[in-house]
Amino acid sequence: MRRGLELAALGPVVGDHARVGAVILSPDGDVLAEGWHKGAGTPHAEVDAMAKVDPAQLRGATAVVTLEPCNHTGRTGPCAVALIEAGVARVVYAIDDPGADVHGGADRLRAAGVDVVSGVLADEAEAFLERWLLSVRLGRPWVTVKWASSLDGRTAAADGTSKWITGAAARQHVHEQRAAHDAILVGTGTVLADDPSLTARGDAGELLADQPLAVVLGDRAVPDDAAVRRHPRGLVTLPGHDLAASLAALRGHGVHSVFVEGGPTVASALIAAGLVDEYLVYVAPVLLGGPRVALDDLGVGSMSERRRLDVLSTTSLGPDLLVRARPQRTDTTQPQTQQQHDAAPGFGDDGPTNDRSTP
Amino acid sequence: MRRGLELAALGPVVGDHARVGAVILSPDGDVLAEGWHKGAGTPHAEVDAMAKVDPAQLRGATAVVTLEPCNHTGRTGPCAVALIEAGVARVVYAIDDPGADVHGGADRLRAAGVDVVSGVLADEAEAFLERWLLSVRLGRPWVTVKWASSLDGRTAAADGTSKWITGAAARQHVHEQRAAHDAILVGTGTVLADDPSLTARGDAGELLADQPLAVVLGDRAVPDDAAVRRHPRGLVTLPGHDLAASLAALRGHGVHSVFVEGGPTVASALIAAGLVDEYLVYVAPVLLGGPRVALDDLGVGSMSERRRLDVLSTTSLGPDLLVRARPQRTDTTQPQTQQQHDAAPGFGDDGPTNDRSTP
Repeated sequence: MRRGLELAALGPVVGDHARVGAVILSPDGDVLAEGWHKGAGTPHAEVDAMAKVDPAQLRGATAVVTLEPCNHTGRTGPCAVALIEAGVARVVYAIDDPGADVHGGADRLRAAGVDVVSGVLADEAEAFLERWLLSVRLGRPWVTVKWASSLDGRTAAADGTSKWITGAAARQHVHEQRAAHDAILVGTGTVLADDPSLTARGDAGELLADQPLAVVLGDRAVPDDAAVRRHPRGLVTLPGHDLAASLAALRGHGVHSVFVEGGPTVASALIAAGLVDEYLVYVAPVLLGGPRVALDDLGVGSMSERRRLDVLSTTSLGPDLLVRARPQRTDTTQPQTQQQHDAAPGFGDDGPTNDRSTP
Repeated sequence: MRRGLELAALGPVVGDHARVGAVILSPDGDVLAEGWHKGAGTPHAEVDAMAKVDPAQLRGATAVVTLEPCNHTGRTGPCAVALIEAGVARVVYAIDDPGADVHGGADRLRAAGVDVVSGVLADEAEAFLERWLLSVRLGRPWVTVKWASSLDGRTAAADGTSKWITGAAARQHVHEQRAAHDAILVGTGTVLADDPSLTARGDAGELLADQPLAVVLGDRAVPDDAAVRRHPRGLVTLPGHDLAASLAALRGHGVHSVFVEGGPTVASALIAAGLVDEYLVYVAPVLLGGPRVALDDLGVGSMSERRRLDVLSTTSLGPDLLVRARPQRTDTTQPQTQQQHDAAPGFGDDGPTNDRSTP
């Protein structure tokens, strides 16, 4: 199963699919073939693996798969049927498929007399697929909210200038995060103020291979000459103020994960609505003061309503600090949408500290 | 000299004095005695050490002192004269005394035929005495500004509640910092809003041995029943809006270091005036949003005017993060008041990171 997860990781990070790996074993436990899912419209992992084996060898074989084999005829046929027809004797998988129209593969396999074992390395598989699983379970994409701010929480100086609040390493990290999400979302205010291209770019400004879909939220019109209109993946505009409906609409575009880059109004509204799954906060060693806060009103009237975070990591990026955090899983003020995880609450007191020479 | 610095550290951290250590060596290099300064009005370190030696042994001896022997008759006589009269042959010290009315000790010693060597472990001694040296050189106390905020830079929820934004470890750290400064300063707004006691307390709420002087800045009256009026060290009020003059006035109270705890108006005014020597920022893993920002206007109109920081350390305190920083020494937008130091700029990229398990 661990090899299966390694194989799953070979699939594309973004796209309208789950990353799944599979290994076919002989009755003696020898590896006959390996497979993985290479993206929407291509064979599922177990079918990919089976295609590499002499059909005669599949009779009595064991299929190890990181996700429950599907029971659904979509762009490919049901994997459960393919396994049954091939004469596979045993199927071992990590986690149940959460999809309403695709689950039931395990039941179908059992009904056909196949020995089925589930839950092997389930935690690892769950963590590996967390964005996809959440999007299927909740019917909305995984939402990562990012901002870059000064140590006092400002994203720009009073005149709106913000280039560059953080350094090159942090900016490059942001581009990599863009490429690792299916879509990048900003409000119309950010489009009108900054005219961002919303592309994922490399050190030299070149476009990265994976480009997120560009999404602009809000009622104001995106100008005809806006850079985002020339986005290589295209532009989706989502008018209106129903955040949940807007996110659900993105699922219709095959978006399982969205990277939110502002501005404060959009980020704050998502946080207030409990629709954020992860935060990436890049903190620059500067002070700015003034009106340009990273977040505005979150609907927190009193300290008892504060939005608690679990800090997953604090990492130096050049002169800047990246704080990666999630809504605290024990925070009852927020819906329990994200997967359980093992991170310590807060910045923690048991990890190494970055304590520099003190003059 | 290193032993001298160890001895100096035995002296009281706070108070109207420099912490100085001294070692008396025989002509053969044997240690005859050690001494240190125990606070204002007590013998200086070299005199303290000499008093422990048979006067006959002082003839031809070497005195190693961390600070240039004084040439001033204050509450004690000039140390330079005491050394000359004792017949000491050689004086080795680390750094020149910056005081206008006390320096010249080295010249006086040399004129009397004493062999004088200066600059030994000067960097270490300079760093050890940095607060005192700055206060003597600039005529104002060393200023440490502290705030505790959410990750988005808020010190309180919209209704003003702020207890407890940070955890017990951070709060205890704050009390230790209070005890390590000569004074604690807040604006009248903080007194009226929070009625703080401005005392340094231990885990159980007990008063620590070292108490900072309580200082309230601003024109509004401190209420008769304000907790700060019952402060064990007493209360100093500084009306008016001339920050430099107010700080200079604190020198008249024997204050070499001041710990500024708010509110935003006072902290921001000090930062804007370039009067801050160190920042202690306690960041809690929560989001608050809303109007209660840790800093307000800093006079930063454009990014080019941003206040750059050197981050000395980032340290986990329970669930919170303490960022210790200073104005960047290469930041030309700020007066070069503080000592040069060797910290890396920013959060740095060469230290260990606190990277937790990533689900």
